[in-house]
Amino acid sequence: MLIPQLSSTQDAALSSALQSLIDDKTKPQGSLGVLEFIAHRIGLIQQTSSPRIDRTAIVVFAADHGIVAENISAYPQSVTWQMVENFLQQGAAINVFARQNDCALHIVDAGVNHDFGKRVELIDRKVGPGTRNFAKEPAMTAEQCQQAIQHGMDLVAAMPVDVIGFGEMGIGNTTTAAALMHKITGIAAAECVGAGTGLAAEGIRHKQQVIEQAVAHHAGIEAPMEILQTFGGFEIAMMVGAMLKAAEQRCVLLIDGFIVTSALLVAAKLQPAILDYCVFSHCSDEHGHRRMLDYLKGRPLMQLDLRLGEGTGSALALPLLHAAVNFLAQMATFSSAQVSEKSA
Amino acid sequence: MLIPQLSSTQDAALSSALQSLIDDKTKPQGSLGVLEFIAHRIGLIQQTSSPRIDRTAIVVFAADHGIVAENISAYPQSVTWQMVENFLQQGAAINVFARQNDCALHIVDAGVNHDFGKRVELIDRKVGPGTRNFAKEPAMTAEQCQQAIQHGMDLVAAMPVDVIGFGEMGIGNTTTAAALMHKITGIAAAECVGAGTGLAAEGIRHKQQVIEQAVAHHAGIEAPMEILQTFGGFEIAMMVGAMLKAAEQRCVLLIDGFIVTSALLVAAKLQPAILDYCVFSHCSDEHGHRRMLDYLKGRPLMQLDLRLGEGTGSALALPLLHAAVNFLAQMATFSSAQVSEKSA
Repeated sequence: MLIPQLSSTQDAALSSALQSLIDDKTKPQGSLGVLEFIAHRIGLIQQTSSPRIDRTAIVVFAADHGIVAENISAYPQSVTWQMVENFLQQGAAINVFARQNDCALHIVDAGVNHDFGKRVELIDRKVGPGTRNFAKEPAMTAEQCQQAIQHGMDLVAAMPVDVIGFGEMGIGNTTTAAALMHKITGIAAAECVGAGTGLAAEGIRHKQQVIEQAVAHHAGIEAPMEILQTFGGFEIAMMVGAMLKAAEQRCVLLIDGFIVTSALLVAAKLQPAILDYCVFSHCSDEHGHRRMLDYLKGRPLMQLDLRLGEGTGSALALPLLHAAVNFLAQMATFSSAQVSEKSA
Repeated sequence: MLIPQLSSTQDAALSSALQSLIDDKTKPQGSLGVLEFIAHRIGLIQQTSSPRIDRTAIVVFAADHGIVAENISAYPQSVTWQMVENFLQQGAAINVFARQNDCALHIVDAGVNHDFGKRVELIDRKVGPGTRNFAKEPAMTAEQCQQAIQHGMDLVAAMPVDVIGFGEMGIGNTTTAAALMHKITGIAAAECVGAGTGLAAEGIRHKQQVIEQAVAHHAGIEAPMEILQTFGGFEIAMMVGAMLKAAEQRCVLLIDGFIVTSALLVAAKLQPAILDYCVFSHCSDEHGHRRMLDYLKGRPLMQLDLRLGEGTGSALALPLLHAAVNFLAQMATFSSAQVSEKSA
C-alpha cells in the first residue's frame, strides 16, 4: 500500500495575492474574521485566487467495535446497524443537514456487525463484522488495517469534489478514539475520555480504566500505523485513507467531531502536511475534543455543544465555507464601489 | 406613541411537548446542543410544536452620527452613504450573505447625511441628516427619537416574516453603542469601548474619554428613553421600534453584533420579555460585545471574530436556524425508525 506523500499548500506569491484581494473588499481589514482565514486557506488548497465550492460531499463511515464487550457505551451495539438503516431511510440528523445544504451524502459500511444484504444506496466496504476487543487483543490484523486504509483511498479517488466532510457511526467509537488520542498525543487518558452517547460519571471512570488497562496490555506500540491497528476501528482507518487521498486531490477536508478528529491525528502523524488541507467545523461537547483541536492547532468554526457525530458538525459548517468563497468572489472593492478607505 | 406590551413566550405545556419531540428524535438526548435550544425557543415564539421558517428578512438601518466631530472613527463620515450605495449595488458583504441564504434584504435610510434622491430600492425614513454631537448636546430631540421608533414599528408591521435580522451602517456608531451600553448597564466605559472599524490603542483611549466626558456632561439622564435620545442614533432608535414590533408579531429576532445588541439593551429595558424572542447570532470581535451578551444572558450561536456590522453575523447564522426547525420537522423518531434506546 502506497500512502500519498503530501506537501504543504504554502505559496508566498499566491498567499500575498489572496490577502490583497481580501483586504481590498469593502469592509474594514480583518472584519470578516475567520471567514477571511477560510477564504485564504481554500485559495491555497485550490491553488487559485478564485477558489470555488461547487461540489460537496459528506461520507459517513460506519463500523462496529469489539471494545463494546467491556461495557463502555450507553447504547447497545445493534444501534450501529439500526442507525445505518436510518441513514438509508433519510431519517437521521445528517440526512436533514446534508439535504438542507445541497451536499451529497454517501454511507459506507466499513465493518458493521450486521448483514445488510444487497443495498444500492449503501457502499459496501465491510472489512469484517466489527473489530476485535482491544482490551484483549489488537483491534485489527495488519492486513485489515491496510485494507481499510486502501478502501478509504479508493473511495475518495472516485469522488471528484471540492469539499469532503467526514462522518462516522459506530457504537463504542468514542472509546476507540480516546485510546488513539491518548496513544498519539501522550495526553493523560482522563483528559481523553468523555460521556460518548451519554455515560454518567461512573461509566466514564470505567471507560478510562478500560483504556488504561488496554494501553498497558499493549505496551510498546508506538508507531502510528501500529497504534491504529491495535486501538482503532475500521471506520477510523478508512477515514485515515480517505483523508490522505482527499488532500492529495487538493480537496478541502472538513473535519467533524471527536472521532473524525482522532482519524486526523493518525493521518497527521503519517503526513503532517495534511493539516494545511483541513477546516475544523466545530468543537464538540465530547470531553477531549478541545484538547485534540489544540494539539492540532486547529481553530474550530463553531461551538454548538454538538456530540452526535455522523458528520453533522461538518454539514452545519458548509454554509460558512460557501460564505468565505462567496465574499471573495462577489463583494465589491473599495475602488470599484468608490468607497473611501481608512483615513487614520 | 404606543410601545407594544410584550409578554413572555413561556408555556409549560408547549415547552414540555417540544422537549418530548426533541428527545424522541434518533440521537442521544441533548446531542444537538444549541440547535435543540433554538428549536425549542422558536416553537415557543411561534406557539406551535411544528415551527417553520419560510420567510426571512434582514433590515439594514443606516444613519450618521454627530459624534464623529470628536474624531472617534478610523473612516470618514462619507463612508456611511458610500456603503449605502454599495448595498444598493449589491456589492457589500451583507448582500452576498443574504443572497446566499435566500433572505430578503431591505435597506433603510434612517438618517444618513446625504441626499440619495428618489431611489426605489432605498426605504426613505430619514429622520434628519445625522444626529447632533452628543458630546455637546442630546443626539436627538424627543420628537426625533419618537419618530425613529415609530418608523421602526411601522416598517416591521408591514413585513410578514418568520425571522427578522437587524443590521446597521453608520460611521461613529460603535461610539454611540458604547455610550448606550455604559449608561444602560453601568459597566465601566473602558469595558464598553473597542476598536470599531479599526482604531489603534490611542484612538480607543480617546474614544473612551469622549464617552466619559459626554456622560458627565449629561449627568442625571437615567430613563431608557432619555438615554436613547441623548446618546443614541437614528438607526438605533429605529431598531428599538422594529424589535419591539417584531416581537409583538411573534417573529424570531435575530440579533447581530455590538450596535444591534445596544438597541436590544434599550428595548429590553423598556420591555424585558423581548429577550424570549431573540436568537443571538454571534459574539463579535468588538470589545464589549461579550459583556453585553452576558448582561442579557444571551448565548451566541457563533464566534467568528466578525466586526463588520451590516447584519452579516445574522445572515451567516440563518442556516443554523433552518437546521433547528428542520431537524425537528424531518428527523425520524426512535420508534418510527426502530432504533433501540439508551440501555443504561
